[in-house]
Amino acid sequence: MSDHIVKSYDDDLNTVAAEVARMGGLAEAQVADAIGIIVKRDPHTAEQVVARDTRLDELHADIEDRAIRLIALRQPLANDLRRTVCAMKIAGELERCGDLAKNIAKRTLALADADPMLPLSRSIERMGKLVAGRLKDVLDAYTGGVLDKAVAVWSRDDEVDEHYNSLFRELLTYMMGDPRTITTGAHLLFIAKNLERIGDHATNIAEFVHYELTGRNIEAERPKTDALAPEQN
Amino acid sequence: MSDHIVKSYDDDLNTVAAEVARMGGLAEAQVADAIGIIVKRDPHTAEQVVARDTRLDELHADIEDRAIRLIALRQPLANDLRRTVCAMKIAGELERCGDLAKNIAKRTLALADADPMLPLSRSIERMGKLVAGRLKDVLDAYTGGVLDKAVAVWSRDDEVDEHYNSLFRELLTYMMGDPRTITTGAHLLFIAKNLERIGDHATNIAEFVHYELTGRNIEAERPKTDALAPEQN
Repeated sequence: MSDHIVKSYDDDLNTVAAEVARMGGLAEAQVADAIGIIVKRDPHTAEQVVARDTRLDELHADIEDRAIRLIALRQPLANDLRRTVCAMKIAGELERCGDLAKNIAKRTLALADADPMLPLSRSIERMGKLVAGRLKDVLDAYTGGVLDKAVAVWSRDDEVDEHYNSLFRELLTYMMGDPRTITTGAHLLFIAKNLERIGDHATNIAEFVHYELTGRNIEAERPKTDALAPEQN
Repeated sequence: MSDHIVKSYDDDLNTVAAEVARMGGLAEAQVADAIGIIVKRDPHTAEQVVARDTRLDELHADIEDRAIRLIALRQPLANDLRRTVCAMKIAGELERCGDLAKNIAKRTLALADADPMLPLSRSIERMGKLVAGRLKDVLDAYTGGVLDKAVAVWSRDDEVDEHYNSLFRELLTYMMGDPRTITTGAHLLFIAKNLERIGDHATNIAEFVHYELTGRNIEAERPKTDALAPEQN
């Protein structure tokens, strides 16, 4: 009986972790699909990304329920409690990555017939691939329990910020040069901002992975180019 | 002894709720201060808002710790568990409202010496007051346990979206008319978007208050002008 209890307790913990991993895979796919239609606009894929987001919301709600029930019914101790809380927090970050991917997809729909502004769309796509890579790495770190990988993602946070800040200037220059591009440019500004925010969520996940594995918060504030820079958050 | 346990259990629950209320008051002040410097740019207030945000982060972390400990050590039943989880979720929404207020403050710093673009700054300020009112109402609903107030905030969600969508068009028209206003206009676009997101968090809080008080989710999707409108989220 006690054996049975212990076993099903581990099952609960592993189920929560497995659902977070599943959510991670889906969020990764959503982000990749959204980035894939920034240059090559594709309404069908865009609508799929929008529709598929509800699945992430359901998984998130399910993970929270399981985690809370596990904490209430099993009173996990130090390590297991940390693992459970981090699973819940990481699921929350992934749900927000999904929202941002959905929003990017919606904006590509709004831009379906607009000037593609290729040079700019391409540098946004490049930034997107950088961000998608961070998300992939931090999910590898989570599922594999690899601390170094999480720390590496966390410490390279400023790459995305620098990329975003130069894109911000590039876009405004383009809009000033040709006011007919202002509407498209504004949507691209928000797409770039959404990508930057996905990068921030990857950084947050790295912090939770570090905490889950070590029980300590990552020391020192996350690297930022300028604490008062308006483009942040 | 059992009396003592029961009492300190209620104390724990009440402390968490009281800390969330305190966080609500601080978030309300941060949002109001940020809105107050959109027209009347004031670097001193802006820096205060940026600095004060860490206090919200600390309160959020403390509330999560207390709530998780309470769930693990006391195994609260239905109502109390719901109350504890909602406190934790509402604290998360308030922390994000604080981040958005901080970001608005940072942008007003970036605009300190820019063309005030008064007509536009004023309509953004009006939108801000609408959003701040929603945040105040939903916090009243939470601290007072008033279901109708929460439902009212939830059902008027589209007011902010409509306000934002017309502001979005207004800003782009202005930028097209005078390309020298494009940089300022871009920052104002993000300020308006941040306000819209604060409004969304107020709506989320309304949903948690409804769930805490009734044990049921608010029926039907939240009112939206157009499910595929790019300005959303």
